[in-house]
Amino acid sequence: MIEPLFFKRPAGITVQGIAQLTGAKPGTGARLDHVITDIASLDRAGPHDLVFLDSNKHADALASTRAGACLTTERFSTQAPTHVNVLCTERPYDGFVTVARELYPDALRPSSLFDSEGVAPGAIVHPAAQIEDEVTLDPGAVIGPRAAIGACSIIGANAVIGAGVQIGRNCSIGAGVSLMHALIGDNVIIHPGCRIGQDGFRFQPSGRTHAKVPQIGRVIIQDNVEIGAGTTVDRGATADTVIGEGTKIDNLVQIGHNVTVGRNCIIVAQCGLSGSVVLGDNVVLGGQVGIADHLTIGEGAMIGAKSGVASHVPPGEIWLGSPAWPRHEFVRATAMLRRQFGQRAKAGTGDG
Amino acid sequence: MIEPLFFKRPAGITVQGIAQLTGAKPGTGARLDHVITDIASLDRAGPHDLVFLDSNKHADALASTRAGACLTTERFSTQAPTHVNVLCTERPYDGFVTVARELYPDALRPSSLFDSEGVAPGAIVHPAAQIEDEVTLDPGAVIGPRAAIGACSIIGANAVIGAGVQIGRNCSIGAGVSLMHALIGDNVIIHPGCRIGQDGFRFQPSGRTHAKVPQIGRVIIQDNVEIGAGTTVDRGATADTVIGEGTKIDNLVQIGHNVTVGRNCIIVAQCGLSGSVVLGDNVVLGGQVGIADHLTIGEGAMIGAKSGVASHVPPGEIWLGSPAWPRHEFVRATAMLRRQFGQRAKAGTGDG
Amino acid sequence: MIEPLFFKRPAGITVQGIAQLTGAKPGTGARLDHVITDIASLDRAGPHDLVFLDSNKHADALASTRAGACLTTERFSTQAPTHVNVLCTERPYDGFVTVARELYPDALRPSSLFDSEGVAPGAIVHPAAQIEDEVTLDPGAVIGPRAAIGACSIIGANAVIGAGVQIGRNCSIGAGVSLMHALIGDNVIIHPGCRIGQDGFRFQPSGRTHAKVPQIGRVIIQDNVEIGAGTTVDRGATADTVIGEGTKIDNLVQIGHNVTVGRNCIIVAQCGLSGSVVLGDNVVLGGQVGIADHLTIGEGAMIGAKSGVASHVPPGEIWLGSPAWPRHEFVRATAMLRRQFGQRAKAGTGDG
Repeated sequence: MIEPLFFKRPAGITVQGIAQLTGAKPGTGARLDHVITDIASLDRAGPHDLVFLDSNKHADALASTRAGACLTTERFSTQAPTHVNVLCTERPYDGFVTVARELYPDALRPSSLFDSEGVAPGAIVHPAAQIEDEVTLDPGAVIGPRAAIGACSIIGANAVIGAGVQIGRNCSIGAGVSLMHALIGDNVIIHPGCRIGQDGFRFQPSGRTHAKVPQIGRVIIQDNVEIGAGTTVDRGATADTVIGEGTKIDNLVQIGHNVTVGRNCIIVAQCGLSGSVVLGDNVVLGGQVGIADHLTIGEGAMIGAKSGVASHVPPGEIWLGSPAWPRHEFVRATAMLRRQFGQRAKAGTGDG
Repeated sequence: MIEPLFFKRPAGITVQGIAQLTGAKPGTGARLDHVITDIASLDRAGPHDLVFLDSNKHADALASTRAGACLTTERFSTQAPTHVNVLCTERPYDGFVTVARELYPDALRPSSLFDSEGVAPGAIVHPAAQIEDEVTLDPGAVIGPRAAIGACSIIGANAVIGAGVQIGRNCSIGAGVSLMHALIGDNVIIHPGCRIGQDGFRFQPSGRTHAKVPQIGRVIIQDNVEIGAGTTVDRGATADTVIGEGTKIDNLVQIGHNVTVGRNCIIVAQCGLSGSVVLGDNVVLGGQVGIADHLTIGEGAMIGAKSGVASHVPPGEIWLGSPAWPRHEFVRATAMLRRQFGQRAKAGTGDG
Repeated sequence: MIEPLFFKRPAGITVQGIAQLTGAKPGTGARLDHVITDIASLDRAGPHDLVFLDSNKHADALASTRAGACLTTERFSTQAPTHVNVLCTERPYDGFVTVARELYPDALRPSSLFDSEGVAPGAIVHPAAQIEDEVTLDPGAVIGPRAAIGACSIIGANAVIGAGVQIGRNCSIGAGVSLMHALIGDNVIIHPGCRIGQDGFRFQPSGRTHAKVPQIGRVIIQDNVEIGAGTTVDRGATADTVIGEGTKIDNLVQIGHNVTVGRNCIIVAQCGLSGSVVLGDNVVLGGQVGIADHLTIGEGAMIGAKSGVASHVPPGEIWLGSPAWPRHEFVRATAMLRRQFGQRAKAGTGDG
């Protein structure tokens, strides 16, 4: 169990409350009034912690857990020690997340690192900025002229909101972020150190030197987007760079100018999207993927980690490798290659 | 057409003015006094926007464009609707960039995010710093002792200029940048969040632990360099890390200690240059390239995106892959491999 | 020789002093009272500089060096010009580093960029924070409620230390860093722009949208860790993210939630460790390595630059490639592939 130093200690919820919240069915003999105050993993749980079990992989740990309650499937429900209040459900992890969200409401959005309310000392707001009610500005936050911050949004310490930037309601902008030439929707989370809205990377050869091409577009970030720490999103050249509603982006990702990311995409850390790339809705990119400029990744496609995409990817397909191939080709080819070359190498044919 | 929320609305230029500026030849019937006030893409342009067309790929869009003027080649010039004022040139995109630079002079260098002039409230300048005339310091900028900032340079909000750092004239240092142990030339653009001049990564094994090796060199950034958001440039160990004149570096690039980058290089996002790498002049690195330490990339060489360079690359060559090979070998080998293994896999030979 | 603009000019040390400090044996005729005031490379050294030579690669430079003293092995000791005071040792570079550390004590830990002592103007400390003696806070540093900073630690300009964060003694936290939900040991160096302790990247599908999974763990950074500029370390989901004692991490590395890094590991720039990865002690990762989630890299294993690790790696092994293989297999397979495909390609078999 983690000592919740950094969040309010949860108020707690009974086993019956968990059953109601998640739709899980209490097992025979479950003490419905037993109070759960935290979540934990099977091996670290104590009598007031909730755990979950949904695969064979951790089934052994169930026998020895000290947890107070366990969300699990029918299959494992009879294997729990008697002190564990069992809650049966087809999707234990879904239920576990639901309870975690109930116990830790302040973990659903990053809060002020200074426990600020309103405008903290050291925040600097241009007289021509518009700040709605219940906005929190942490120390050192800088809000430029004509910028607008919607109600209940938090601007982190030393974050910089440039001239004219519009931020919606219930947003959390992390410490040290810079935002410029951008329009941000509601319920957007931007983690610390993101760089949003700077010039795209485009130069025109002029003799041996490179002339800067004006980047006059914007960045549009729709509602419910989350962007990880240190990620960079360049503004458009003539059009806009757009991140679609509900998309979640991890740390240290690079999004080039004029990129359009669809809705509810998942982009794992350190991916790079070159200029004018288009991702359809519900695309998933594994970590460290690179996509060459002007390519389209179709709706629902998935690209394996570390792939280098050099051609359009049709909707719904899974691609891997560098250059990326359809997954089934890549996996078999890799296996065959390893068999042909790796094994011969192992056999010591003297090629080294 | 983009609503130019974030830049001054251009004053406009006539078709004749564009002809003079770019050397393009107005087509038959062009209204030379028609005023152009913005740039746009073919499909989004309105009657006062300039567009360009230089390839078949977008030729269809020409027929339906509402643009007021179009820079294009002889070949496409007769296909434009009559309301489009045609301007003929061999290099339409060059002309388009020239006009964009004329219309948007304030897009050629990032400006103050706070519309500041002089020292904004909240900027902190050490008494022993030297600030020339017409320098802009945005709120929260910190200028250390013995630092010097040249005339007409802008230091962004919450940027930190360390002790002794020298910055030339007409530079733009972005929000949240940190600069230390560095000498910066004139007309340098450093985008938000760059980290310049911290220790290189070198440790000497000492038993099982690692002893820090002092990093006493500097970072030298020559005139007209541009460095993208979040990029890191370590200072030299005993020598200096040098970025040559006119070189343009994209976002989230890592430049190790003692690296020498030549003049007018292009380094795309997320590349990593290990310690003591040398790039000749006019080298181009695609995105996510990695180069092992102490290697030299010859003048004018090009390295394809996502390559891992493990040997010296001769001048003028194009290399690809990981480990990188000369391009023609890589492309054919990849095609052959895919034919041999991928197709057999597709044919379902039961190897999966 | 580098003009030491950014460090205090060293006091100097005699040849005899170097012999005592390093255990090196002065060569015949060495002037033991000759004073060395700096370190340099062979080709750039002057009469008061120390150089070293430990390989044939630079042996030619020895004949023409102007250095005042040279640490070298028995083998090269007789090849030095007579004006060079030779110091014989089996490990010249070890000795060189030892002298460098002696000459430049202020290069062993980043110091205040503002030459600050105590709380600089513009630093903002919450009344409920605990600051021990001899702590330096640079301008714009923000220290949140219940945060604690140990004696002799330096918090850089515009760094943000969140509520409840504990930092040990003799730490250096760089400019613009953000730290939250974290416990930091003693003698820790965190370079500028690091992002430590923000939410891990985990969402639960809920229809087509993604529900945020609360991230209630912490980041634990043990003693003597060094973390490079722009690196991101997410806090744990229910457990903690842990960086073991003495581990050194380079720039722009991504460490996911629940990762455990062992002691004295070396992680080169731009690596990405997915959630719940475990590195044993003394693991070395080359640059741009990616490791898939929940994998274990055994003690002392080494992973080559740009590898994509998709399976557990046993202790002590060297792996390479993407997907990563044991090194000997990878190297031979690559060589064979290049011979088979690359050469045929070169021979122009018309497959392109």
